[in-house]
Amino acid sequence: MNNQRIVLASRPTGEPSSANFRLETVELPALQDQQVLVRHHYLSLDPYMRGRMNDGKSYAQPQPLDAVMIGGTVGEVVESRHPGFAAGDKVVGMGGWQQFAVVDAAQPGALRKVDTAHIPLSAYLGAVGMPGVTAWVGLTQIIEPKAGETVVVSAASGAVGSAVGQLAKARGCRVVGIAGGPDKCAYTVDELGFDACLDYKALGSGKELSLALKAAAPQGVDGYFENVGGAILDVVMSRMNAFGRIAFCGMISGYNGEPIPMANPALILVSRLKLQGFIVSEHMALWPQALKELGTMVATGQLKYRESVADGLAAAPEAFLGLLKGRNFGKQLVKLA
Amino acid sequence: MNNQRIVLASRPTGEPSSANFRLETVELPALQDQQVLVRHHYLSLDPYMRGRMNDGKSYAQPQPLDAVMIGGTVGEVVESRHPGFAAGDKVVGMGGWQQFAVVDAAQPGALRKVDTAHIPLSAYLGAVGMPGVTAWVGLTQIIEPKAGETVVVSAASGAVGSAVGQLAKARGCRVVGIAGGPDKCAYTVDELGFDACLDYKALGSGKELSLALKAAAPQGVDGYFENVGGAILDVVMSRMNAFGRIAFCGMISGYNGEPIPMANPALILVSRLKLQGFIVSEHMALWPQALKELGTMVATGQLKYRESVADGLAAAPEAFLGLLKGRNFGKQLVKLA
Repeated sequence: MNNQRIVLASRPTGEPSSANFRLETVELPALQDQQVLVRHHYLSLDPYMRGRMNDGKSYAQPQPLDAVMIGGTVGEVVESRHPGFAAGDKVVGMGGWQQFAVVDAAQPGALRKVDTAHIPLSAYLGAVGMPGVTAWVGLTQIIEPKAGETVVVSAASGAVGSAVGQLAKARGCRVVGIAGGPDKCAYTVDELGFDACLDYKALGSGKELSLALKAAAPQGVDGYFENVGGAILDVVMSRMNAFGRIAFCGMISGYNGEPIPMANPALILVSRLKLQGFIVSEHMALWPQALKELGTMVATGQLKYRESVADGLAAAPEAFLGLLKGRNFGKQLVKLA
Repeated sequence: MNNQRIVLASRPTGEPSSANFRLETVELPALQDQQVLVRHHYLSLDPYMRGRMNDGKSYAQPQPLDAVMIGGTVGEVVESRHPGFAAGDKVVGMGGWQQFAVVDAAQPGALRKVDTAHIPLSAYLGAVGMPGVTAWVGLTQIIEPKAGETVVVSAASGAVGSAVGQLAKARGCRVVGIAGGPDKCAYTVDELGFDACLDYKALGSGKELSLALKAAAPQGVDGYFENVGGAILDVVMSRMNAFGRIAFCGMISGYNGEPIPMANPALILVSRLKLQGFIVSEHMALWPQALKELGTMVATGQLKYRESVADGLAAAPEAFLGLLKGRNFGKQLVKLA
């Protein structure tokens, strides 16, 4: 049986392009004992993949050249030589950018069966998956919001940001999003229940954004979930209350290599701020607790999400490049079957 | 009885000068009930005073114009109308830049009797006072060092920095200081027991300092006690290990108004750092525990310190300006009696 897959063909210098990827067709090997063959329904595209394309020092191993691009996947078991899985099971894994994956199911955490009676399969790549848990960990472990506090989140309509805002609302906070474009902003307020959302494409990332944030967060900002970095961070920092907390989850604007300075780090002292970076995969002990809350909230309609779905594996590179430019609206997926 | 005092005559624009201060002689009022008259032996000069001279937003109220400059003092009770104090008692307070203070002793924390049998009176303004507690709080509450970790401290020969290093050594850490000049560096290694010290005046604050830090901290940096800010922070951040902690205690180089950017805040995410600012006066509950350890260490000779003593109240402004330029060597005091 044939398997289409996308490998990293070359490392980007600066902005990545579709030329960094290569679509291949290979023969699937026969299953060994303990292995499971999974047909992928959806592939998840996430900003962290940009970091993996580099060779430099980062928190994770670089993606090897000529190997299948890393990525979260959901799908259905086609064939199993592991007693814990049977054909037809719906599963979540890290199958990568390919139609099928042969998974060593005996490896802990490699493959997890999921219930699709109350939660759509694709949600396990978003609100009830890595992005949802990322939101949960940064919010509950670093920002630790109290009812009545104001929480700001950038990339607010994205998979992580939209969960951050709704989790903070569920904890009684005032929530202000920052997003690019009037549609994304309207969505966070009208659909997700955010109290306000600022369109940085209309406001810029300077004085106007600062004044708009002052109006949207009249009591100041107590927690900031940072998905972007750069000039927006400077504006939010200048509005932080004493003892404010900033969870550093993403620095998209810096992924292409140019370091973006922080304008006024003295605010860390003046406002007694706590800034902390984290990676969700280093907090595995918290995943069950997080997934329980996220799953319940999705099943009961309390946690909403939106998906951008590209069609077919060949569309993955363009969809990924669009994600890095903020062209997606909600969780970016690729439909594979 | 006459009292000499120094008031803030004007606010500095940029670098302060002696023209911002004015020496006055005033008559001491008669004591009211519950009041105590203290004759100051030593006045403490500290970097935080520079921040108080500004009118802008900071963590503390600005020092009012034409009022006695704020400052910690130790001295001896001359006359008391409070039952808890008697003439001859040695006391610590916030008497300010003046020879005598009339203190409302009923106000909690306004005046504290101290034991000078085992600890010299002046130490209550340094190692067993606010600077020592500052070191203790930042180290134990934010850096939380484990034995075997590497801790770096800037302004290493100063009142706070020297205590940070010795407290970290007592906890089994490798300690690297950063200080200005060969004498200060030699002192931290030869007298205080630091493992290494880097002279930023000789090395600069760029590539050379970075290489020297790499050599002095071959296992990387786990904790950094930040007393300075600016380019040195950038160098240390680039050498931080994953899950490193930075306690922001001072940003001397930014006190004159120019914000100094942080070159690469993406390191907060890449290295999962925690950066946290603190002010020792907001952690009053920890003072007894901190003072107990500091007092024991001073009394047993385990915590050493050095003092720069200016003679007479009139010398205070120049001594203070020198402190801001790093001209002092150890805790800066003014001897008043």
